[in-house]
Amino acid sequence: MKKIAVLGSTGSIGTQTLDVVSRRPDDYEIVGLAAGANVDLLLEQARRFKPQWVSVGSEDAAARVRSELPADVRVVHGERGLRQIAGESGANYVVCALVGSLGLTSTLAAIEAGADIGLANKETLVTAGHLVMSRAKEKGVSILPVDSEHSAIFQCLNGEPAKAVKRLMLTASGGSFRDLGREQLKNVTVEDALKHPNWSMGAKVTIDSATMANKGLEVIEAHWLFDLPYDRIDVVLHPESIVHSMVEFVDTSVMAQLGNPDMRVPIQYALTYPERVDSPASPLDLLKQGTLHFKQMSFERYPCLRLAYEAGRAGGTATTVFNAANEVAVARFLKGEISFLAIEDTIERALARHAPVPAPSLEAILEADAWARREAEAAR
Amino acid sequence: MKKIAVLGSTGSIGTQTLDVVSRRPDDYEIVGLAAGANVDLLLEQARRFKPQWVSVGSEDAAARVRSELPADVRVVHGERGLRQIAGESGANYVVCALVGSLGLTSTLAAIEAGADIGLANKETLVTAGHLVMSRAKEKGVSILPVDSEHSAIFQCLNGEPAKAVKRLMLTASGGSFRDLGREQLKNVTVEDALKHPNWSMGAKVTIDSATMANKGLEVIEAHWLFDLPYDRIDVVLHPESIVHSMVEFVDTSVMAQLGNPDMRVPIQYALTYPERVDSPASPLDLLKQGTLHFKQMSFERYPCLRLAYEAGRAGGTATTVFNAANEVAVARFLKGEISFLAIEDTIERALARHAPVPAPSLEAILEADAWARREAEAAR
Repeated sequence: MKKIAVLGSTGSIGTQTLDVVSRRPDDYEIVGLAAGANVDLLLEQARRFKPQWVSVGSEDAAARVRSELPADVRVVHGERGLRQIAGESGANYVVCALVGSLGLTSTLAAIEAGADIGLANKETLVTAGHLVMSRAKEKGVSILPVDSEHSAIFQCLNGEPAKAVKRLMLTASGGSFRDLGREQLKNVTVEDALKHPNWSMGAKVTIDSATMANKGLEVIEAHWLFDLPYDRIDVVLHPESIVHSMVEFVDTSVMAQLGNPDMRVPIQYALTYPERVDSPASPLDLLKQGTLHFKQMSFERYPCLRLAYEAGRAGGTATTVFNAANEVAVARFLKGEISFLAIEDTIERALARHAPVPAPSLEAILEADAWARREAEAAR
Repeated sequence: MKKIAVLGSTGSIGTQTLDVVSRRPDDYEIVGLAAGANVDLLLEQARRFKPQWVSVGSEDAAARVRSELPADVRVVHGERGLRQIAGESGANYVVCALVGSLGLTSTLAAIEAGADIGLANKETLVTAGHLVMSRAKEKGVSILPVDSEHSAIFQCLNGEPAKAVKRLMLTASGGSFRDLGREQLKNVTVEDALKHPNWSMGAKVTIDSATMANKGLEVIEAHWLFDLPYDRIDVVLHPESIVHSMVEFVDTSVMAQLGNPDMRVPIQYALTYPERVDSPASPLDLLKQGTLHFKQMSFERYPCLRLAYEAGRAGGTATTVFNAANEVAVARFLKGEISFLAIEDTIERALARHAPVPAPSLEAILEADAWARREAEAAR
């Protein structure tokens, strides 16, 4: 029986994780749920799945939750609450579905507690891949990718060693604005940006898909997850989002994982691995699909992807800065404070002004993160 | 060190096998070569690879080979010669690249000798899948697929159990006449039929691709190799021959294996499995390829495929009859004795007149095979 804690249970990945878990009550027990501000949904989930531990964003919210749940449920809050759910709830499997760099300390807490990790929070590896992967190795903890691209690569590899791999090919749909040129991007609105052609996701990820910062984060995440240098990680445009990613092996054989865009498939695989079980997702109808297209990615069209590679190659705290500057810039774009194209400018400027700290400690990472956020907040 | 015997060394698969082997002289030693009538090439191969055993089709050819090779080389001939190369040459790995049902007895001889099998001869499993697979299991012998489609499925499965598999999807290019309707097939010539759009192969396989009998044989072979019922084996038209086949798993995830059409890749994988090593094949350029198409297969357009499924489901000697009638019909078409469409008629008539023997012995198989050949020779 897997004892599961879900960090970010009310978000897109969190709710789908609970959907998957609810279909296999004999295999899974929810022992902890952590959410931010969506207290109503969290309460509903807590009543249904009866975890012993629940965490919410603020002390006020915790008070409300405490008053509405049985007295024996431990209700905690804030970033410390997340760490408690990850490390003290008795979970042997922690799904980290938090958005942004908030996921780092709680993922580390889960690793310290010896729990396997279903990782949907890519910023964890982007900001502290060297710490997370080395500590997971030391503790004998598995990091199972939940992102559809990394799950695809994980499935294509299926145990093949890194020396057999020539390169990873992450696919990218191109995002909401893939049919627009650079000139047309100047005046796009938040509403336009939130219309992803293939995937239904949270706002942050949808904007990151439009800027291709999301693919940049995935490239950096793949670097850490699969222990491959950046020159063996490519991105290819694939508008249909049917091929979720590919691996080219040294013998020229290419393995690809395909499916309809439905996050419940990679979520479930991260839970059931190495087994596969029936899924509620609808099967792929390749005949109806008919055609799959593959196109060259362009760094000119998508500067955020170029910046991600540059940050990844620079190493150290550069990827932390890439991520933090992007998070703030996207938040500001969503609030209407800056334009769509200012997102990439914000990241580029922060990176240009940052001298990366190599192999940084957690403190150095948090410091670089805070610095980049201040820079990005100040940018116009 | 793999001690390899190649049955059918002068054919398309045989020569490519030797090409692969020659690139890794430290890993492989050729201990036996068997060919039919192409004595010149066989002699050239024997001088280069220095096997202890050599077999040719006829006694006359054997006399010539004996006179031209060192006295310590054992020169044998005929079907018995094939069995000797397979079972007595000291090979621990036998590549069976014979065309047609000739491969059966020598494959069985190799299994009895405890050698692993690189199987390119699909008729072996088509005519006697139940005997070959059960005997291989008893002897602890691995049957490694060399056919590109079965190698693709083998790679997609990569150890996943049959219960995880929803269905196999074999891809088919459509063959030389894929752009022609039924009406236009009436007067096609041998020359036209030999122009395969994607693969460079032997004449028999090229004609079988045009009639789709080849895919039918592959479906039956897949049934035995992967131990799945016929309703979990589908065929999909894929004109580019880039996706070599796919597996849909119960969780809706689809794994596909892609590459340029180059038989050296599956041949090499059958030799190096579970490892992958560098290949002389040119890497797949998906960006240059740009587009992949998938279309519904039609039993009306390709009756030979329908007949293969019918024979497979009927079981027993029905698949032997399918294969033998097809072999004779193709040979007669190549000689100009019958028309292209008479191939399918010949198979259909033979199957209609045959009462399948269930779970047949080798004798019953050979009897059904001989009967079907006589029927097909007599057909007009």
